[in-house]
Amino acid sequence: MFTPGGVPAKVDPNGVYQVEQMYVQYFIPQNKRGALPLLMWHGGGLSGVTYETTPDGREGWLNYFLKRNWAVYNSDAVERGRAGWAMYPDVFKSEPVFLTKENPFERFRIGQGAGSYNKDPEKMKLMPGSLFPKEGYDNFTKQGVPRWTTTDDATIAAYTELVDRVCPCVVLVHSQAGSFGFKVAQARPDKVKALVLVEPAGIGDRKQVEKLKNVPMLAIYGDYIEGDARWPKIRANGVSFLAEAGKYGAKYEVIDLPKAGIKGNSHMIMMDRNSDQVAGLIQDWLAKQGLYR
Amino acid sequence: MFTPGGVPAKVDPNGVYQVEQMYVQYFIPQNKRGALPLLMWHGGGLSGVTYETTPDGREGWLNYFLKRNWAVYNSDAVERGRAGWAMYPDVFKSEPVFLTKENPFERFRIGQGAGSYNKDPEKMKLMPGSLFPKEGYDNFTKQGVPRWTTTDDATIAAYTELVDRVCPCVVLVHSQAGSFGFKVAQARPDKVKALVLVEPAGIGDRKQVEKLKNVPMLAIYGDYIEGDARWPKIRANGVSFLAEAGKYGAKYEVIDLPKAGIKGNSHMIMMDRNSDQVAGLIQDWLAKQGLYR
Repeated sequence: MFTPGGVPAKVDPNGVYQVEQMYVQYFIPQNKRGALPLLMWHGGGLSGVTYETTPDGREGWLNYFLKRNWAVYNSDAVERGRAGWAMYPDVFKSEPVFLTKENPFERFRIGQGAGSYNKDPEKMKLMPGSLFPKEGYDNFTKQGVPRWTTTDDATIAAYTELVDRVCPCVVLVHSQAGSFGFKVAQARPDKVKALVLVEPAGIGDRKQVEKLKNVPMLAIYGDYIEGDARWPKIRANGVSFLAEAGKYGAKYEVIDLPKAGIKGNSHMIMMDRNSDQVAGLIQDWLAKQGLYR
Repeated sequence: MFTPGGVPAKVDPNGVYQVEQMYVQYFIPQNKRGALPLLMWHGGGLSGVTYETTPDGREGWLNYFLKRNWAVYNSDAVERGRAGWAMYPDVFKSEPVFLTKENPFERFRIGQGAGSYNKDPEKMKLMPGSLFPKEGYDNFTKQGVPRWTTTDDATIAAYTELVDRVCPCVVLVHSQAGSFGFKVAQARPDKVKALVLVEPAGIGDRKQVEKLKNVPMLAIYGDYIEGDARWPKIRANGVSFLAEAGKYGAKYEVIDLPKAGIKGNSHMIMMDRNSDQVAGLIQDWLAKQGLYR
């Protein structure tokens, strides 16, 4: 019975399933000023909602770039959000990961590590000077969706199809999508004309790093990295991968926000109170690449 | 390890989970002509994507009404799409239902019942005169997401909160959301100023039918109902519920499309080739209720 008081239906689970599809929503401004479409790829346990609004209710990066007349393509990767997901272990190989409310708070350099979360925003132990809007933390956790760790190949295949369909383009990635951005740019170096990496959590294929030689890249990292258990290594991996590409001639820039005088950013830079300021750095860098008119 | 080559992270599954949230995306035209916001609630196994595009690549009802200057609120109900979902049986009481590609084809009066699906559109046995764009059937199945049958209370609570936040409004529902629309209108009869029911699969609370006395209602049904195993009963339930409300003074209208000379519609009326024509009937009815200026 699908609906109480409805009419019973037989559902035969045997048959053909549609799996590994991806969802993309796009907005095309009437008078484009971005020279190419801007694709936004979200991080782990999240969906395209990442870029829509901030936890304190301001407009997110999607609107920021749309209002500057970029064509914006915002996606939900395979198994996230509107892309749907498939049964496990029958189709997907593992169980998904569900995150508690405590987890991103303590892992994303919003709070001061383990034990810093509290449901009362007044009692949350934030990083000193944090720009994360703590009063909206629940709004952020409502954006969380289960995620798998065994679907990367399908996600890369789907993003590659997207690039084949709508690019040449600029790809902006966050966190988990760091490795997707690098790898898809390596697979389609003629189509990804610039790569903006916001705290990339992974890298591309080290054996094919030469393929990035003509892809301008910008990496941005937030605050509180030195004191974190994992982020010094994650950042070092990203920067060394960029440096390898640089040996083959790739133009790249690394902005460590605190060194640029911008302090207080968590891993969720597009959610922090200064999200527009950081978007402005990206906008300026894209303009410098000749991608804005 | 979240990302291959990344830095290991410990994830403690014990803690507090955010569950039963809902996703709503809205578009507000600069010069509103709809007197009230128009809320679109999707059916079972689907998300707000239902209203975005048609399987043959045309613009969907969301754009149809937005272009006529309605403020449109398009949602993903609890556990669908961007709303995310919770672990089961720990939080949700049951397993979700996954549908094969065959299932909606054979159950939504697109094909001629059991055995009518074929992956080759040329070999699909469609209803004679069907207006469903068979060449795009795979695009439709890509919109499918798992759904639960045990989350109705949470969904009704979430939609009620939505209505409290953005209404007075018009609510347009499809299929599974039929019962949500009736029940939320019964809970907030002062805020739901009109209810458009597109093939509602369920009804409201028969004991509180009087609460609908001031809610104008329009129900629309497609073709091929008489020959179906379930739809004659589903339609009769809906029509009798409306008639009960009518006894208390509710103004309601039932449009059986074939009787109105419009033949060939499946259960997915907003996907059929004449989707704009049917949207026009809804637009005209809303205008007649004084809700368009």
